[in-house]
Amino acid sequence: MSNLHKALDEKLVRVGILGATGTVGQRFITLLSNHPWFIIHALGASPRSTGKPYAKATNWKQTTPIPSNVREIIVQECKPEHFKDCAIVFSGLDADVAGDIEGAFRAADLAVFSNAKNYRRDPSVPLIVPLVNDFHLSMIPQQQAQHQPPLQKGFILTNANCSTTGLVVPLRALEKSFGPIEACFVTTMQAISGAGYPGVSSLDIIDNIVPYIGGEEEKMEWETLKILGGISEEDGQKAFDMHSRYPLRVSASCNRVPVIDGHTMTVSVRFSRRPPPSPQQVREALVAYTPAARSMGCPSTPVHAIFVHEEPDRPQPRLDRYYQDGAGVSVGRVRQCPVLDIKFVVLANNVSIGAATSSIINAELAVLKGVVKLPIN
Amino acid sequence: MSNLHKALDEKLVRVGILGATGTVGQRFITLLSNHPWFIIHALGASPRSTGKPYAKATNWKQTTPIPSNVREIIVQECKPEHFKDCAIVFSGLDADVAGDIEGAFRAADLAVFSNAKNYRRDPSVPLIVPLVNDFHLSMIPQQQAQHQPPLQKGFILTNANCSTTGLVVPLRALEKSFGPIEACFVTTMQAISGAGYPGVSSLDIIDNIVPYIGGEEEKMEWETLKILGGISEEDGQKAFDMHSRYPLRVSASCNRVPVIDGHTMTVSVRFSRRPPPSPQQVREALVAYTPAARSMGCPSTPVHAIFVHEEPDRPQPRLDRYYQDGAGVSVGRVRQCPVLDIKFVVLANNVSIGAATSSIINAELAVLKGVVKLPIN
Amino acid sequence: MSNLHKALDEKLVRVGILGATGTVGQRFITLLSNHPWFIIHALGASPRSTGKPYAKATNWKQTTPIPSNVREIIVQECKPEHFKDCAIVFSGLDADVAGDIEGAFRAADLAVFSNAKNYRRDPSVPLIVPLVNDFHLSMIPQQQAQHQPPLQKGFILTNANCSTTGLVVPLRALEKSFGPIEACFVTTMQAISGAGYPGVSSLDIIDNIVPYIGGEEEKMEWETLKILGGISEEDGQKAFDMHSRYPLRVSASCNRVPVIDGHTMTVSVRFSRRPPPSPQQVREALVAYTPAARSMGCPSTPVHAIFVHEEPDRPQPRLDRYYQDGAGVSVGRVRQCPVLDIKFVVLANNVSIGAATSSIINAELAVLKGVVKLPIN
Amino acid sequence: MSNLHKALDEKLVRVGILGATGTVGQRFITLLSNHPWFIIHALGASPRSTGKPYAKATNWKQTTPIPSNVREIIVQECKPEHFKDCAIVFSGLDADVAGDIEGAFRAADLAVFSNAKNYRRDPSVPLIVPLVNDFHLSMIPQQQAQHQPPLQKGFILTNANCSTTGLVVPLRALEKSFGPIEACFVTTMQAISGAGYPGVSSLDIIDNIVPYIGGEEEKMEWETLKILGGISEEDGQKAFDMHSRYPLRVSASCNRVPVIDGHTMTVSVRFSRRPPPSPQQVREALVAYTPAARSMGCPSTPVHAIFVHEEPDRPQPRLDRYYQDGAGVSVGRVRQCPVLDIKFVVLANNVSIGAATSSIINAELAVLKGVVKLPIN
Repeated sequence: MSNLHKALDEKLVRVGILGATGTVGQRFITLLSNHPWFIIHALGASPRSTGKPYAKATNWKQTTPIPSNVREIIVQECKPEHFKDCAIVFSGLDADVAGDIEGAFRAADLAVFSNAKNYRRDPSVPLIVPLVNDFHLSMIPQQQAQHQPPLQKGFILTNANCSTTGLVVPLRALEKSFGPIEACFVTTMQAISGAGYPGVSSLDIIDNIVPYIGGEEEKMEWETLKILGGISEEDGQKAFDMHSRYPLRVSASCNRVPVIDGHTMTVSVRFSRRPPPSPQQVREALVAYTPAARSMGCPSTPVHAIFVHEEPDRPQPRLDRYYQDGAGVSVGRVRQCPVLDIKFVVLANNVSIGAATSSIINAELAVLKGVVKLPIN
Repeated sequence: MSNLHKALDEKLVRVGILGATGTVGQRFITLLSNHPWFIIHALGASPRSTGKPYAKATNWKQTTPIPSNVREIIVQECKPEHFKDCAIVFSGLDADVAGDIEGAFRAADLAVFSNAKNYRRDPSVPLIVPLVNDFHLSMIPQQQAQHQPPLQKGFILTNANCSTTGLVVPLRALEKSFGPIEACFVTTMQAISGAGYPGVSSLDIIDNIVPYIGGEEEKMEWETLKILGGISEEDGQKAFDMHSRYPLRVSASCNRVPVIDGHTMTVSVRFSRRPPPSPQQVREALVAYTPAARSMGCPSTPVHAIFVHEEPDRPQPRLDRYYQDGAGVSVGRVRQCPVLDIKFVVLANNVSIGAATSSIINAELAVLKGVVKLPIN
Repeated sequence: MSNLHKALDEKLVRVGILGATGTVGQRFITLLSNHPWFIIHALGASPRSTGKPYAKATNWKQTTPIPSNVREIIVQECKPEHFKDCAIVFSGLDADVAGDIEGAFRAADLAVFSNAKNYRRDPSVPLIVPLVNDFHLSMIPQQQAQHQPPLQKGFILTNANCSTTGLVVPLRALEKSFGPIEACFVTTMQAISGAGYPGVSSLDIIDNIVPYIGGEEEKMEWETLKILGGISEEDGQKAFDMHSRYPLRVSASCNRVPVIDGHTMTVSVRFSRRPPPSPQQVREALVAYTPAARSMGCPSTPVHAIFVHEEPDRPQPRLDRYYQDGAGVSVGRVRQCPVLDIKFVVLANNVSIGAATSSIINAELAVLKGVVKLPIN
Repeated sequence: MSNLHKALDEKLVRVGILGATGTVGQRFITLLSNHPWFIIHALGASPRSTGKPYAKATNWKQTTPIPSNVREIIVQECKPEHFKDCAIVFSGLDADVAGDIEGAFRAADLAVFSNAKNYRRDPSVPLIVPLVNDFHLSMIPQQQAQHQPPLQKGFILTNANCSTTGLVVPLRALEKSFGPIEACFVTTMQAISGAGYPGVSSLDIIDNIVPYIGGEEEKMEWETLKILGGISEEDGQKAFDMHSRYPLRVSASCNRVPVIDGHTMTVSVRFSRRPPPSPQQVREALVAYTPAARSMGCPSTPVHAIFVHEEPDRPQPRLDRYYQDGAGVSVGRVRQCPVLDIKFVVLANNVSIGAATSSIINAELAVLKGVVKLPIN
């Protein structure tokens, strides 16, 4: 057994969580409390929570109790010195503070896995959906080298917007089997938990739809290109190519609906290849899709990256969002589209694969690929 | 003042309602109880309700009380002899019985305005959204002549599916201003009242989305062509042309959401004309659209056939569905589409313009155009 | 016709609204825009809204559009000088600012009708549910005399908590017919609109009940005594007697439920009189109850102060909250209670009779009784 | 190790499920698929499902997939011959068929654990909430002896109504510590799943409360007496005493609310003992309560029969219903009651402890007490 796997088995990988009292932070804690490799070592939150045991500092809103090994951890300020023993720092910070804090953590040579949007458009920061574009990890050395002074261990890596995540997993599976997609139409019906807590006022969403989520459509239309695109290299400098070799147009219409967890989307795509694949070929390609994270043995990766439903009325968020602890993506109703080629329905659990679960698998990938430096001999 | 308008002012137009105890029937009663021209004369329902005063026969689910002038009307069986004094018969019957009953009423020379789907695909039956294609009324004489023996007064005229109705109103406004639409993408988020009562189980829809409504996508994709298409004539025979001179592809994805009333849709369209109109031109064309029903003076027609919202987060079903008693259509978020040309959001009140209100305006149109024969000298 | 009624008919009564951009303020505007006597003259809100036309200053959340005669009124700061021409000032202010502002308005000799809780426990301020205890208006002269210097026109009068309001209307009807009630058990199921906007987070209430509303049970248990109690007089000083001649114990359990408007309550009461009235006697007493506001001709008073439902499953908030524009109270399921005497269900529309409507009827009462001084010779 | 425990460890206890395709049946299957003692051997349903593999016969509505070891079991008619190898038969049948079928199974000498209401009022059938009155199992021999011919193994045992179950657990804990309760007031807010599938129409419950559930209040008021009462014996004949030595008056008001799972109740009680216990004493008694099923080692019994919340706003159904897989009862807000003695809030998961989980623990108890005869040596 390698030193690496020995260290993992002994749970020697200490992790910290920024924004630990918030919605995403609570989800990180729930998921990490039983993680086979990682052990929660430090929790950071805003000044009004610091100095208190976690159980007193948080307004816990999960349906399982606070893990007992976390209740008494004293919440710290989000300053690098409190996290210096953490090989991995997960960030569930809000966008209004994430930029500065995550930057300071990277400058202190810490490895940050962020759920915030602040660095997603940074040309040296990978935007990784772990079931899709793990190979973007190869950008990390360049990010570290660009820093003054160059970083040894520190970097920032982000995961994608929750709605983007659900979209790119099946799109990647289709591009892998059938080549480039040219156009994609997506209408989302997004859960309230995507807006955090307190988030959406009940007066705005009970018996209602809000056909607008600020900035969301732009994120989906842009992030999809960065994630599904490759990395070009010129004069030794790497760059994300934004799917530019095969231009892809994405049109997103985003809606908030009275669903607690789980983003549902209607998706339609047009392939470059003529004739396009049949619905049955698409179903088979989706079922067969196995991401690298799975073959490499990342423990939080779902068995079925994509579960394809055969019943005509599935996936449904309330029934299907918990499958595989929300780590996979559900697809249903694969059929021909009269305007583009193929249309289908996607469901992704926005608080799992759409948020904390993705960060955790990204960290698992980074550990296995040696991007995260562990304190082993 | 003409004899016609005199008769209307004196409320001499007796109307009957089939399926009077159901959801659509209750809506007909609510809307007709204060109608300036029509007076409710007969109510029909299934045998278990017949013989009782209406207030005893129905499980009233409207938010206003049963109109006092209707409470004591004795419910009849749905047989033509009980409706022979009605110049107009509105049908809110379920599809499983509407075919036979409506056919029998037409055969008895009664004018039937149906909300059911049974005759919508009949090549001699107009499928009319009153804010869109009133000129399809011109098919009625051929329908009457084809009958054996030819009918003097009887015919069947249907209104459209509730989700189709919301779509075709803005599409018609756009085609009127900018010429043919080639392609249309629509994703619906449909209210539970569209499924009738008891309809959707609460266990299926609270905290949930059902991404499937049986037959709904086919209806939207087909009915849109019949409604937006013209009437061709060959050898003296008229036929609905299904928009065939300018082929139109419609792709619909229909979802049930936990909203009580009001179907919301995201819509994207591609025009034949190059360059396509700008979002601002589209907004202006929608605002300016005035259907014939308005200029002719149909009393149930809304002042604004299409209300265009400027706020980024409107229309919302809970806030906007009651505007103009639900007789108009709301549009918002008109903007460019990266895949087709223009995209926007539509809201239509499925129980008003999407159902009973459409039938009533259709009847008003038919009266004003002389298609309905009134008992006036 | 008296000068008073002449002035009323000519709509010479100018009114102002404090907190005009909030939830209660919007409701005041909606109700007052068509009032037969009152005309909206001034609108006050927090500094960030002042100087703007109302339509720009507010985030309108009502299901009817902003009344056209209000859209362009410039919002003022909540200072008495901007309201000096108002014979009546309605306050929809939040409790955190209502105390100081309403006090300043009274000191400036303005008549304030408040929806806030701040002065409800003040021993010189009447707490009036207009369908119940209008005679508490007789405390106003003492309140004015106690002020330094004594006030000519100014005073503060409050209405009750929304849940208290629904409870005391039937209790008053029962005490009027059957004498004192000794004990009352009430469990509320309160709508989210009772918490204002944004108020209750959707994550806290969709698919959920919150069995706690801060301070609400204490309010119901205390306010009920002040409202149902009389006024004692000793040495020329009047005092609210808190129902002390016939001690009344009230036990309230308050819950928040996923309902938009309308507070539902299960109520059980024990009478002093033995034997207690039968359920049928109770029903008849509730139906027969006519408050003074009705006999005096207050225009916003409902025809039926209490509507008694006979169907076993009514009242229901969604179906019954709009009846009489929410100005009355609905009672159903009157039956014997195995523990106390009689139990029943109450529904009151918290945003109508539970808030703005009560303030408006209180003002109508105060005008008719001459407590509000109108600028008429 | 005893033969009994050996048989249990080897999972030799074959069980059958009647009504296996319904809501309660699906819950039985989910819970039993991993049971340490029981193995699902036969599934019964209505004729339209028989002959099909379970996965084809059911419209599965659980949030976890159909257990793989059940998918292929062929569904049988609900006839005793198909269940003759089952030591235990669980019944999730609807009341309209449960009476005859369960009677026939008993007559065929089968042990039936029923969730239906049909036999609850039978004077020889125990009505057992397993955390409360397991000692009522002692009635089984008399039930068997009364049968013609006397039964060897067959009997019927029922669990309680879902709302009764949540009430009697804390009441039993309080009577155990403080002696008889004289009066109890309870208002329920019951989840839609309590009505089965399709059950409550979404049009009746979204944005609404229905203040009536047919027969529910009578069940709560009557069942509570049978469960909390003892067994009297006269002339060798046992009888349930209905708490008659210390008369107990229960007043229930039952409401349906838009919550998927979990019945919430406000409860107030009056003790015989004067002075009554303090809120703190009540909290301690609730926490300390340990039912016999726990001490005897029934594997489905929760660790905490009653969990007492200290936060003022708990328990909440969405957050607390899954705790301990819904097998316990949550209590919160223990405080003094101005009318009776003590009031508090109760939450019980109606589909777990309120239904299938109770039946399963009842069966576990019956096995351990030798009431169920196992096929060992």
